Amino acid sequence: MIRSAPLALALACALATSPSYAAQDKPTPSAKELLDASKPAEWRTPDPANLLYMQLPAGRVVIELAPDFTPLHAQNIRTLVSQHYFDGLAIVRVQDNFVTQWDDPDGDDGGDKAKMHPLGKAKATLPPEFTRAIDPKQPWTPLPDGDIYAPQVGFSEGFPVARDPASGKEWLVQCYGMVGVGRDVPPDSGNGNALYAVIGQAPRRLDHNLAVAGRVLQGMQYLSALPRGTGPMGFYEKAGERTPILSVKLASELPAAEREQIQVLRTGSPTFAALIDAARHGHNTFYPTPVGKVGICDIHAPVRVDGKPL
Amino acid sequence: MIRSAPLALALACALATSPSYAAQDKPTPSAKELLDASKPAEWRTPDPANLLYMQLPAGRVVIELAPDFTPLHAQNIRTLVSQHYFDGLAIVRVQDNFVTQWDDPDGDDGGDKAKMHPLGKAKATLPPEFTRAIDPKQPWTPLPDGDIYAPQVGFSEGFPVARDPASGKEWLVQCYGMVGVGRDVPPDSGNGNALYAVIGQAPRRLDHNLAVAGRVLQGMQYLSALPRGTGPMGFYEKAGERTPILSVKLASELPAAEREQIQVLRTGSPTFAALIDAARHGHNTFYPTPVGKVGICDIHAPVRVDGKPL
Repeated sequence: MIRSAPLALALACALATSPSYAAQDKPTPSAKELLDASKPAEWRTPDPANLLYMQLPAGRVVIELAPDFTPLHAQNIRTLVSQHYFDGLAIVRVQDNFVTQWDDPDGDDGGDKAKMHPLGKAKATLPPEFTRAIDPKQPWTPLPDGDIYAPQVGFSEGFPVARDPASGKEWLVQCYGMVGVGRDVPPDSGNGNALYAVIGQAPRRLDHNLAVAGRVLQGMQYLSALPRGTGPMGFYEKAGERTPILSVKLASELPAAEREQIQVLRTGSPTFAALIDAARHGHNTFYPTPVGKVGICDIHAPVRVDGKPL
Repeated sequence: MIRSAPLALALACALATSPSYAAQDKPTPSAKELLDASKPAEWRTPDPANLLYMQLPAGRVVIELAPDFTPLHAQNIRTLVSQHYFDGLAIVRVQDNFVTQWDDPDGDDGGDKAKMHPLGKAKATLPPEFTRAIDPKQPWTPLPDGDIYAPQVGFSEGFPVARDPASGKEWLVQCYGMVGVGRDVPPDSGNGNALYAVIGQAPRRLDHNLAVAGRVLQGMQYLSALPRGTGPMGFYEKAGERTPILSVKLASELPAAEREQIQVLRTGSPTFAALIDAARHGHNTFYPTPVGKVGICDIHAPVRVDGKPL
């Protein structure tokens, strides 16, 4: 976890002193213009030990794990990856406006459980990690417009988070592009060997009921644009419909020269504060009426590769 | 517009007297179980003059227009369809987590405007119809958990609606599967010849800024699972990437025997009230913790074809 007191101070000052775009007649800068004006220190380079490269036939999906929220899941996923567990598995389910899920096809009801890939040194069950205790030392960029599901929402380390001060808990929000942990009925039955990405309206009913392992940083279109499965819950009915996973590797397994130069805008940065303000109050000739609000799943921490925004 | 005083009364009684699923230890019935127990009178059959059949190579998309909200747009779209305007046009844009848009490719910046299909008897500009006056005589099923963007949200005639009693206005919400009207910069420049469907998190910033023409009832997967465009704003960069529109017809143009037997659950019905309650308070062995809330884009009016829920 990376903290930056100067950046936090800059954000606080920006929010306190900058006139909002709401008060400006001139067109609000576009997200691209705001990102082009960002400073190098506003971007963080994710730890390569937290980056999964999932290679599909159409391209690479890059996922950032969230070990500060779900450390046991992150560690178990790293163990699975180091054993090449996911190589040769498949995307088994695509349910419209819900999730794309990958798994061992023999773990499905239609599979042959005797043929399932062994978990090796990875654990078969894990404590749920559905929430974590709020830690005042963690970075926290609150959103000002509330949320109907949780008392507070905001960003921490680039991830969307909901908080309940009364219970002292916080949890990752299942926004578009977030990666969750499939499980069976017992809450501890998820171990990271079956994962899903959200491909529709944020399914907030999953909050507290499923662990969130991370976020897709790049290649979301290789998960969201797949044909929907026609079986119950969007499972593919025929093996040939599945998309094979060629490999899943940790960026840290690769020589530095083969890693993506991927960076995520710090959600405590002045530029992210400007993006929040633009999302709430932005207006231009095409969108003359600002919506005035921003929801936790309306805005994402921007990503750039080789310095170029995605 | 179809109203039903007995159903409205039944709903009011159901909400006032039924114990919520929150108070029940036993597992909440599934949506399928609730729909299987619905009564025939709880379903409405959309007027075939409001149903568009858009035939794509992969299958048919059925869209219900919303003439009570956007009557001039509905009429103009009907006029365009009657002239076979859309036949041979294409899906020109798919932007991930945002919209799939269809249009005359020659209307794009890369097209040859001299070759654009003539609008014929359809109007080139229309009053915006971004909102309408709240009419107390219209059916209204409020959701109880609020919304961060609007003072009130609920359903009317199967469509998600936001209301502002202070201004006396209401408007269709841009939820997943809603169909909006593309336009150029002037607010009156939309005429229904360029339409889009929402394929991601509800882009509420479009509220008040774009007209909403209707909702996809069937075949959403033929719009949501298309390859994302790689040009700016998700436009396809090459003509060959576009998905051709084989035809768009009104159901009313077809002989009755060739029409889909499509029905939409009345959003004022007791079964829809039970679905709302289940979305808020539903729990079972897999989801032990109810989310407790339902947002306007978390729930949709269910659709069935030949009596079978989609």
